[in-house]
Amino acid sequence: MIKTDILIIGAGPTGLFAVFEAGLLKLKCHIIDALPQPGGQLTELYPKKPIFDIPGFPEVLAGDLIHNLMEQIKQFQPGFTLGEQAQTIEKQEDGTFIVTTDKGTQHHCNSIAIAGGLGSFEPRKPIIEDLEFYEDKGVEYFVKDPERYRGKRVVIAGGGDSALDWSIFLANVASEVTLIHRRNEFRGALDSVEKVQELKYQGKIRLITPAEVVGLNGAERLESIDIDENGAHRKLETDFLIPLFGLTPKLGPIANWGLEIEKNAIKVNNALDYQTNVEGIYAIGDVNTYPGKLKLILCGFHEATLMCQSVYQRMNPGKKYVLKYTTVSGIDGFDGTRKEAEKAVVKSID
Amino acid sequence: MIKTDILIIGAGPTGLFAVFEAGLLKLKCHIIDALPQPGGQLTELYPKKPIFDIPGFPEVLAGDLIHNLMEQIKQFQPGFTLGEQAQTIEKQEDGTFIVTTDKGTQHHCNSIAIAGGLGSFEPRKPIIEDLEFYEDKGVEYFVKDPERYRGKRVVIAGGGDSALDWSIFLANVASEVTLIHRRNEFRGALDSVEKVQELKYQGKIRLITPAEVVGLNGAERLESIDIDENGAHRKLETDFLIPLFGLTPKLGPIANWGLEIEKNAIKVNNALDYQTNVEGIYAIGDVNTYPGKLKLILCGFHEATLMCQSVYQRMNPGKKYVLKYTTVSGIDGFDGTRKEAEKAVVKSID
Ligand SMILES: Cc1cc2nc3c(=O)[nH]c(=O)nc-3n(C[C@H](O)[C@H](O)[C@H](O)COP(=O)(O)OP(=O)(O)OC[C@H]3O[C@@H](n4cnc5c(N)ncnc54)[C@H](O)[C@@H]3O)c2cc1C
Ligand SMILES: Cc1cc2nc3c(=O)[nH]c(=O)nc-3n(C[C@H](O)[C@H](O)[C@H](O)COP(=O)(O)OP(=O)(O)OC[C@H]3O[C@@H](n4cnc5c(N)ncnc54)[C@H](O)[C@@H]3O)c2cc1C
Repeated sequence: MIKTDILIIGAGPTGLFAVFEAGLLKLKCHIIDALPQPGGQLTELYPKKPIFDIPGFPEVLAGDLIHNLMEQIKQFQPGFTLGEQAQTIEKQEDGTFIVTTDKGTQHHCNSIAIAGGLGSFEPRKPIIEDLEFYEDKGVEYFVKDPERYRGKRVVIAGGGDSALDWSIFLANVASEVTLIHRRNEFRGALDSVEKVQELKYQGKIRLITPAEVVGLNGAERLESIDIDENGAHRKLETDFLIPLFGLTPKLGPIANWGLEIEKNAIKVNNALDYQTNVEGIYAIGDVNTYPGKLKLILCGFHEATLMCQSVYQRMNPGKKYVLKYTTVSGIDGFDGTRKEAEKAVVKSID
Repeated sequence: MIKTDILIIGAGPTGLFAVFEAGLLKLKCHIIDALPQPGGQLTELYPKKPIFDIPGFPEVLAGDLIHNLMEQIKQFQPGFTLGEQAQTIEKQEDGTFIVTTDKGTQHHCNSIAIAGGLGSFEPRKPIIEDLEFYEDKGVEYFVKDPERYRGKRVVIAGGGDSALDWSIFLANVASEVTLIHRRNEFRGALDSVEKVQELKYQGKIRLITPAEVVGLNGAERLESIDIDENGAHRKLETDFLIPLFGLTPKLGPIANWGLEIEKNAIKVNNALDYQTNVEGIYAIGDVNTYPGKLKLILCGFHEATLMCQSVYQRMNPGKKYVLKYTTVSGIDGFDGTRKEAEKAVVKSID
């Protein structure tokens, strides 16, 4: 059982920044996310796109913002349960909670911060017979660890950014990369389209278009796929099929936790601490709603900050909290490191 | 009369960011600040100190944060009335407001955002006879425009960062720089203390310590000062005396605007839009208070954002506002410039 003060569901920008604010209050955090990597919508949907409304950044790439947040929270050593979906929450008699994922991982915590955004991202799956049987036996919807594909034959299906970018990346890892798309037109950054074109000329990526995967074969695990190429059928041997048809967020299990839901989001007390109708469970960022709510990253940062104060009070009842400026007090990480401003000197001049 | 949609009182980080969020909604802003430069506490009190809790910045110098914010809001061409204190607010019959400064500058606006922090910064003044008479006739408490001192004789009094830094800066501008401090010890960044030491050796800064300015002379304007140097009196001819003994924020006129004040701050409706008890007047950032309020920069950013939405509704009653992501829609500045993400291409690969 993983133990922590605040269990955060969702590793988007809001959940990540909550780790930092909790850390300032000496509270430990652990984060669960259904995706294999932190960053939520920013990493999954638009990592290379600029955001213009993060205060203090005239422009920042979504991926860089997440990178910076990871760097900022590093000192507070958050734990991560990635690639798993938080499924159930059980409130204990002492007011603490046990949160269990779809893979059975259990987390015991004092408070829960749901920072689930629009829900957990679920892959759009192609309609192919026996697809479920081959899942995790050759069919995968995320590239978690590219090393897994070293020296193997990989087929990627899709025509967007992810399909292009992973084809490019795996071209130097897999023994064979095939990209299948039902049209000949690809939609993505100009860079990526041109790079795939180049790798195709070099024979490092095989392109099959317009085509669709229509069948899967193999006794124990995936051995080959059937392709419909413009009406003609052919079989292709492969170790992996990675369909990358985009992800859609689904509120999913969040809707079953006994929380008040409105407009597909969790109602919270925005006049105080972003707590839900269940004491000890908070909802911050895109996943919550209140009068005037804006689904913006900068709002999630504020909500996370006030939420942490409330958890602090919950864990230290009656203790008066005195706000300290990071500039003045510096930051003591859980990893033993310290950040602080250079001290002024008092020095005579002769 | 200056005309604007939102008149912002206070050019700290909160007021500055409000310009950006207003701009996204096509609302024009004008900012008044008692200080001669934007940045509020960050520029005035700790420009060279790092802040660690701005989301997305593991570390950022206060001065750099303000610089970035100025860059971010540039497209929306805010107007500035600097070095003047907002003194009175008169609500007009049509619900608009006229805001007048201590120097008589008038501003006509639809809504007011008070982002006054801890109040307007007022210089700590030394106790010297006839001091008021010489104000703006040789005695100055801020360095607004260093060029004003070119080729002139300047005396700076004080022993902290500002005194050190302006002595260094003016050493290459003024014909003569004298630094007077009642102790021999200076308190500031090591760099600055060492630099003053060096300039003293080079004869570019004259140091008189321990000493105090005890008298001012001149018929029309300042011509010389009397100094008590460890008990001995002497006279020194000079064109300017700049006492830099720090600034203290005073809520000042803000307390006289008919707003509900609690704990030296303005009560607002944090459950909705940070509006005060007077419709059309909002209070954001350090200057406001509500249950759970934290005087943090990141909170001011969120408050400014929600406030702008409310002003938008006030100015466009009944109009439904649809949130646009900057990443998706780009930003059209009032200056004709446009920022936008690179568009995805749809391109075939042969
Ligand atoms: C194309 C695009 C452009 C945008 N541009 C801007 C912009 O310019 N400015 C701006 O402020 N905002 C923008 N946004 C919105 C911004 O991305 C969101 O406001 C932000 O991502 C919200 O962060 P979050 O941390 O609350 O949630 P998310 O980023 O949505 O992260 C939530 C995470 O929770 C996980 N999760 C949910 N439920 C579970 C569960 N049960 N178990 C495990 N994990 C779960 C999800 O997998 C996801 O990773 C944009 C969004 C898009 C799609
Ligand atoms: C040493 C120090 C370290 C800090 N460290 C941190 C930190 O690490 N993290 C953090 O989040 N915060 C920190 N803070 C607090 C932070 O500086 C404030 O939260 C922030 O400045 C508030 O911004 P603001 O825009 O609301 O107000 P301010 O920055 O106070 O700006 C208000 C402005 O309004 C002007 N004004 C007021 N009344 C009038 C009037 N009637 N007419 C004209 N002008 C007026 C003032 O002159 C001032 O310039 C620190 C503060 C100090 C002093």
